[in-house]
Amino acid sequence: MMDIEGFRRAGYAAVDQICDYYASLQGNEHPVAAQVEPGFLSKLIPSEAPQHGEDWSVIEQDYQTKIMPGITHWQAPNFMAYYPCNATFEGGLADLHAAMISNPGFNWTCSPSVTELEIITLDWVAKVLGLSDDFLSTSPSGLGGGIILGSASEVCVTMAIGARERALRALAEEHPPPQTDSTNSAAAGPSNAAKAIAASATVLANSALSKWRGNLASRLVMYGTTQTHSIAAKAAIILGLDFRALEVTKEDGFALRGATLRAALLEDQSVGRVPFMLVASLGTTSSGAVDNLQEITEVAKDFPSLWVHVDAAYAGVALALPELREQCYSDALRHVDSFSTNLHKWGLVQFDCSPLFLRDRGVLSSALTVTPEYLRTRQGDAGSVLDMRNMQIPLGRRFRSLKIWFVLRSYGVQGFQEHIRRGIKCADVFAGLMGEDERFEMVAPPNFALRVFRLTSAGAAGGEDVDALNRRFWDMLQTRNSELLLTQTVLPDVGFCIRLVPGSTLCREEHMHAAWKVVKECADKTLGVQ
Amino acid sequence: MMDIEGFRRAGYAAVDQICDYYASLQGNEHPVAAQVEPGFLSKLIPSEAPQHGEDWSVIEQDYQTKIMPGITHWQAPNFMAYYPCNATFEGGLADLHAAMISNPGFNWTCSPSVTELEIITLDWVAKVLGLSDDFLSTSPSGLGGGIILGSASEVCVTMAIGARERALRALAEEHPPPQTDSTNSAAAGPSNAAKAIAASATVLANSALSKWRGNLASRLVMYGTTQTHSIAAKAAIILGLDFRALEVTKEDGFALRGATLRAALLEDQSVGRVPFMLVASLGTTSSGAVDNLQEITEVAKDFPSLWVHVDAAYAGVALALPELREQCYSDALRHVDSFSTNLHKWGLVQFDCSPLFLRDRGVLSSALTVTPEYLRTRQGDAGSVLDMRNMQIPLGRRFRSLKIWFVLRSYGVQGFQEHIRRGIKCADVFAGLMGEDERFEMVAPPNFALRVFRLTSAGAAGGEDVDALNRRFWDMLQTRNSELLLTQTVLPDVGFCIRLVPGSTLCREEHMHAAWKVVKECADKTLGVQ
Repeated sequence: MMDIEGFRRAGYAAVDQICDYYASLQGNEHPVAAQVEPGFLSKLIPSEAPQHGEDWSVIEQDYQTKIMPGITHWQAPNFMAYYPCNATFEGGLADLHAAMISNPGFNWTCSPSVTELEIITLDWVAKVLGLSDDFLSTSPSGLGGGIILGSASEVCVTMAIGARERALRALAEEHPPPQTDSTNSAAAGPSNAAKAIAASATVLANSALSKWRGNLASRLVMYGTTQTHSIAAKAAIILGLDFRALEVTKEDGFALRGATLRAALLEDQSVGRVPFMLVASLGTTSSGAVDNLQEITEVAKDFPSLWVHVDAAYAGVALALPELREQCYSDALRHVDSFSTNLHKWGLVQFDCSPLFLRDRGVLSSALTVTPEYLRTRQGDAGSVLDMRNMQIPLGRRFRSLKIWFVLRSYGVQGFQEHIRRGIKCADVFAGLMGEDERFEMVAPPNFALRVFRLTSAGAAGGEDVDALNRRFWDMLQTRNSELLLTQTVLPDVGFCIRLVPGSTLCREEHMHAAWKVVKECADKTLGVQ
Repeated sequence: MMDIEGFRRAGYAAVDQICDYYASLQGNEHPVAAQVEPGFLSKLIPSEAPQHGEDWSVIEQDYQTKIMPGITHWQAPNFMAYYPCNATFEGGLADLHAAMISNPGFNWTCSPSVTELEIITLDWVAKVLGLSDDFLSTSPSGLGGGIILGSASEVCVTMAIGARERALRALAEEHPPPQTDSTNSAAAGPSNAAKAIAASATVLANSALSKWRGNLASRLVMYGTTQTHSIAAKAAIILGLDFRALEVTKEDGFALRGATLRAALLEDQSVGRVPFMLVASLGTTSSGAVDNLQEITEVAKDFPSLWVHVDAAYAGVALALPELREQCYSDALRHVDSFSTNLHKWGLVQFDCSPLFLRDRGVLSSALTVTPEYLRTRQGDAGSVLDMRNMQIPLGRRFRSLKIWFVLRSYGVQGFQEHIRRGIKCADVFAGLMGEDERFEMVAPPNFALRVFRLTSAGAAGGEDVDALNRRFWDMLQTRNSELLLTQTVLPDVGFCIRLVPGSTLCREEHMHAAWKVVKECADKTLGVQ
């Protein structure tokens, strides 16, 4: 095991290795995608832990020679798959410090700085993105604020729990719980027979309450579109609730329109169902579409049971650019109930870091507060602090705000904006090159730094189905995944197509020229051009 | 923003600061509990992010002068509150490396090493703890294995989702879903009128299915005891299911007995309820109690719908010591359905790191798998890899296995065992000192490194209620929280009492003498002894 001086040596060496790694990423020295086969690592590592501690020099060496070859380089400039997963030096140092003062952060008292820095940096982020004051810890209502969770999926489930309880409380006013005998149990007295009667009365009462509650919950419906990330449907599955995916069209840029939403809400209401949550997308995964929040917030006014959550996992950080706010319906964003974005995607902060902002954070805490004696504190009892465990599913929480603080201070708002603008510029460079080649079409509007394209049927020989053609093209692109990494999707009214998303901190225009060269060569090969 | 050479300088400096910090912890130079008031940090930090990037030297300095004073030192040798939250140098270096190759790890292809090292290190941990082969990735059934989640609470909710779906599948065989018109919708044809009819038939069908499902789910009951951590009740609240807390007694050491469990299961079954999950505790928070797994697994044989999950958040790592396995019912552990422990408590691995082991990991993946086109991969489609997103609530996941690998290799199994043994020895030293002072009583059996005590009524003057006496004593102890940090709890048949849990990597016998001195002085003051 390592002592303080051992850590000094190992720490310096790790820093040097990371410096070498980033220099090699800049020099394009790694295959972007790991070139290993399933099961490769079990051939390199023993099947049980060593009895005696090993020298750090051996472990350090093994990290480089055994683990790193199985790493796909999300920080490489030619990684343009999925969405970016930015790393910054500042964020890495924050994670190191947080690891060395490790604490589970569930209550304010666990480490006051952990809770307080989170409140402060969330306000910073809200202001950088130009969100409404209603989402600040200093909101006029006194109810606004946020929490940093681990991912957009965790946000979606957590928010759904809050929205469900809010809807159930409203429903319970119309449909009060059944009268039960549970009050008898308190009065039943101390004899064993009386206790048994009381206990069985309690069981019956609980059973009746569960049925009542289950019946109400089974009326709730969550909404999204066919383009909403699967995290919304998964949240509904997790909570055992219904999810309805509304249709969107290519004509509308794959965005949800108000009329579609209103029709669905009315239809469900007409059969006694209760709309409790809409997951609106600000930047869908397949095409970067932004649901029409202007129309959605208008419709939502007529459906008070509906909680409007905006999932801006990827594109939320683009709100840092004033010139993109209109495209993001920033005016309408003032009227939604909650908003979240993943700073760990395009926002320079290491995974995981998903701020969630709410107009009324009490919706979470009234659904999620459980306080046994061993979690009580003087400050918590006095109500003078926020115990963040009460706004989330888990109890413990890492010190994630430190990385936001380090990054925003070191980059400044302008540095943050430059990074986002550079990503979009890179995407435009690629699209410009592709635009000169008529064998390709862009199949979705250019949203943020995402470009979605495919080969056109004009390029297909002998009447080959255009989807089949593009799947062959995709297979070809995958053979070049050491030089360029992309991912695929399927869009309604389009079919199979390919996504390209620059966004690494190292990506520059020259990498877009290199990317276009790979794409063009694969197209040539797919189409049989020599 | 920081470039490569800037990171080299900043990284070395951070390592040096951490070395200084650990030297100061060894020298007891910090107050254990942060000595700050609510709101302290907002007075020190501006309310918005800077427009222009700041020099790292300023940020680094602010971390030391503004953040650190609000940190409670969980790594300090005199931190004996809650449970430990171990940090090791090895774990910190792993977190640094993981941050700098940041990737969201949801699929094998995201970075093959992330998935493969997790499978390997989970097997290592299972072997160190002497778990049954059924929980290994190489289990005879081919179904065993695990996943690293973030906390025991996340484990509990995730496992409950799997167990719920398992129980609902069985219930659905007896109570099949309602016949609906949803098949019509596919055949409805392309006209708008036909589409509208089909759509509304779908809504009715979904409504009927939701009611059917809600009705079945409302029959499910989760079990624990009054001593089970609140994460179990919270999991039930999150999923909208019923949780029943069974009584335990001081006589039984606050552990669940088989007869109590059987009676409750039968009682619920008799009114049509379906027991679907028991959260059994191996080391409760209030007293370290171990539920009688021998009796519980016997009872469970008669209730096939019941999934037995063992929450060994704190004490699971004690299974690394052969001499403690009997106390942990290690034979009976072979027959439970799932087991989890937090390596980030007493297990030398930084927060967060909660391995969950299952006899049948398909129970999770059949409940949690959702695969849209943009998450499909060649290897995933071929079934040749495990995509771990399908065994958890969130999509993304950090590279947590790296810290397990670094720690277990650097400490070796023997080093790991020594750490656990030292914690128990420290607790024994304290208990020995207290045992010579008859004003105190230990109110629970000595479990692992947890000791629970209070002042006896013999020490109370003028007939003061013993709970009131101990609350005064507790207030007194809190005034000394810069020297020693403890936490409080309430035990059935006992009342208010105080917990002490040594377990920091820096804690040695001398710190137990110092702790006893503080406790004794506070008792003297509480009892009016000069």
